[in-house]
Amino acid sequence: MKTQVAIIGAGPSGLLLGQLLSRQGIDNVILERKSGEYVLSRIRAGVLEQGMVDLLREAGVDKRMNAEGHPHSGVELAFDNRRVRVDLAGLTGGKTVMVYGQTEVTRDLMAARETSGGTTVYEADNVRPHALGTDHPYVTFDKNGETLRLDCDYVAGCDGFHGVSRQSIPADRLKVFEKLYPFGWLGVLSDTPPVSDELIYARHTRGFALCSMRSPTRSRYYVQVPLDEEVEKWTDERFWEELKRRLPEEVAARLATGPSIEKSIAPLRSFVVEPMQHGRLFLVGDAAHIVPPTGAKGLNLAASDVNTLYRLLVKVYHEDRTDLIPRYSQTCLKRIWKAERFSWWMTSLLHKFSDEEDFETRMQQAELDYLTSSEAGLTTIAENYVGLPYESLE
Amino acid sequence: MKTQVAIIGAGPSGLLLGQLLSRQGIDNVILERKSGEYVLSRIRAGVLEQGMVDLLREAGVDKRMNAEGHPHSGVELAFDNRRVRVDLAGLTGGKTVMVYGQTEVTRDLMAARETSGGTTVYEADNVRPHALGTDHPYVTFDKNGETLRLDCDYVAGCDGFHGVSRQSIPADRLKVFEKLYPFGWLGVLSDTPPVSDELIYARHTRGFALCSMRSPTRSRYYVQVPLDEEVEKWTDERFWEELKRRLPEEVAARLATGPSIEKSIAPLRSFVVEPMQHGRLFLVGDAAHIVPPTGAKGLNLAASDVNTLYRLLVKVYHEDRTDLIPRYSQTCLKRIWKAERFSWWMTSLLHKFSDEEDFETRMQQAELDYLTSSEAGLTTIAENYVGLPYESLE
Repeated sequence: MKTQVAIIGAGPSGLLLGQLLSRQGIDNVILERKSGEYVLSRIRAGVLEQGMVDLLREAGVDKRMNAEGHPHSGVELAFDNRRVRVDLAGLTGGKTVMVYGQTEVTRDLMAARETSGGTTVYEADNVRPHALGTDHPYVTFDKNGETLRLDCDYVAGCDGFHGVSRQSIPADRLKVFEKLYPFGWLGVLSDTPPVSDELIYARHTRGFALCSMRSPTRSRYYVQVPLDEEVEKWTDERFWEELKRRLPEEVAARLATGPSIEKSIAPLRSFVVEPMQHGRLFLVGDAAHIVPPTGAKGLNLAASDVNTLYRLLVKVYHEDRTDLIPRYSQTCLKRIWKAERFSWWMTSLLHKFSDEEDFETRMQQAELDYLTSSEAGLTTIAENYVGLPYESLE
Repeated sequence: MKTQVAIIGAGPSGLLLGQLLSRQGIDNVILERKSGEYVLSRIRAGVLEQGMVDLLREAGVDKRMNAEGHPHSGVELAFDNRRVRVDLAGLTGGKTVMVYGQTEVTRDLMAARETSGGTTVYEADNVRPHALGTDHPYVTFDKNGETLRLDCDYVAGCDGFHGVSRQSIPADRLKVFEKLYPFGWLGVLSDTPPVSDELIYARHTRGFALCSMRSPTRSRYYVQVPLDEEVEKWTDERFWEELKRRLPEEVAARLATGPSIEKSIAPLRSFVVEPMQHGRLFLVGDAAHIVPPTGAKGLNLAASDVNTLYRLLVKVYHEDRTDLIPRYSQTCLKRIWKAERFSWWMTSLLHKFSDEEDFETRMQQAELDYLTSSEAGLTTIAENYVGLPYESLE
């Protein structure tokens, strides 16, 4: 087999990159370890930045999102039994975010790829990139008991944190930056109407809570739990009760509860490797960096890497601009580090780190007090939440 | 002896409070452990917020400050061998800070007290407040071998971090919040022209540095050093060389060096006690709270406490508003905690905490990158630096 760009991973970033490249006449093949159904079964993020929405439009994959997605022009911060709205649109000159589940984005991208006739190999076992330091890299994989070889010009590693792409780079060529947080998020998905039209990020002495949603009839809620917490110990009743205790009373009073469709605990992690490229391999999204979910940046950062790599490859293939290749990593990282900072900061601001009221607790209170009484302070939240501008290659 | 308000400590906050009260016909006596010359010999801060400048004007102690002080409409951040100006005036609707040494403020306040005939007892030993929980508190002290008693209505504790006032409150009535930093500031005062018209706060891989000044011919410079550093190990030559290495090259190139007039190492500390009052005793300034010097908030916070206590006592004596008394602490603390946050944040942003490039180092870089590319980000620095509005008692 032969292609121009081998894409490892058929999650939203691999599929989006493939779709964008195909529309520019750049041939690509996607290799995915799991089945399409498995990929679609993963419950993930649901808040898209303006930049990602624009990119999906550029890819021609916006029809259902336009019809079924929900633009949000604000989010709320809740603390001390009160709520403060961050007017995203008003503070950023009209920018908003789109609430539309990652699962739906993936479904739309899969359908588009089906239509465009691009090749996706699902259930490709033992995927391995080779000869990355040469002009002729290739990827091997097993399919139906046979080992196949895909020759290519470039490899895009869109295979997530646990994928093979990053592991294919010699460890001594990568610098790892990491921070683990001493807690996780217990999340529940339920077919109940969201308690509020907009997301509510709540700081409480019992711990952080988040009211989010996927649609007018499907809600996604989270509460901060200890890192070693067992999900089995959380009945639906216990979850709803704990959630209510962490919300302002008037919000808790009208929270609609119901059976959970999904319930799981996720750890929180900040992680970045530098550089994000090695020879002809480019790392994209979670393969190179992880953010804690506070701030909803994970999927959006993957999209911003896709944006950079897509524009880079178009210039390489259409304008012979191979000189731009070394700039991929630094261009991505400039924006990634700012989003890592925002995610770390929002996590630090809203979570419970200590059982006592200590200096750091007071810093959280003072920061919320300051930010919510300052237009500049609120603007810093808003402009990061809707997404900072994409960085240019040149 | 008898007075209305007994003030412990003749530093700038005690003197300013005394002057403001005297002008409103409220009798006061100041007790100071040291001599006037000693008080004047202490080298301290030099940046006054607009609010403190206004308060000095209200006290009628602004003549020399108006003539010799230097209004600054900006400060600079230096990092990665470049400089970014924070346009204080432009970003805050015209607010500025005044560069005028604490020593000069103290000198002016001492002269004003001399003129107004207010009583200041210098070299008062063994000062002790008593009966604070009653309606008839008093303060005892030794002077010329005799123990004297000063009866009063209220006691203002303006005697600093190590003073007797806070120690007079039963320990179980106070909650202490504290953070120590793993470094100190080595400061040098020299009769050399400042390297720049405005203050420069520099982040560098070797550690933080600050270029400050007292006048067009007197400079004040600092470099971050380990907490256990000995000042004797720092010759003037070594200090200048280290300072230059931490500044952008073009700044270092024109740094005028000369013999140091004063050279010392100060630790950095964040400290707050709650509440700031006990019976008829009110804590003011350093007696209740300490900030690290980054952000120049120490003296200014003392002034904001003086402002609150002064307005409170005027209402008590002129309008019989004793109901306001319990509000002193919470009114002060609202603003203090925000300034504590700003000082802690600016310290965290600009100092070296680790010998390696770690996640936190990248957070500092990303934050500087973000803030200096965002008008909202720069505004949050500017509006805190010039000073947030004074809180009202009602």
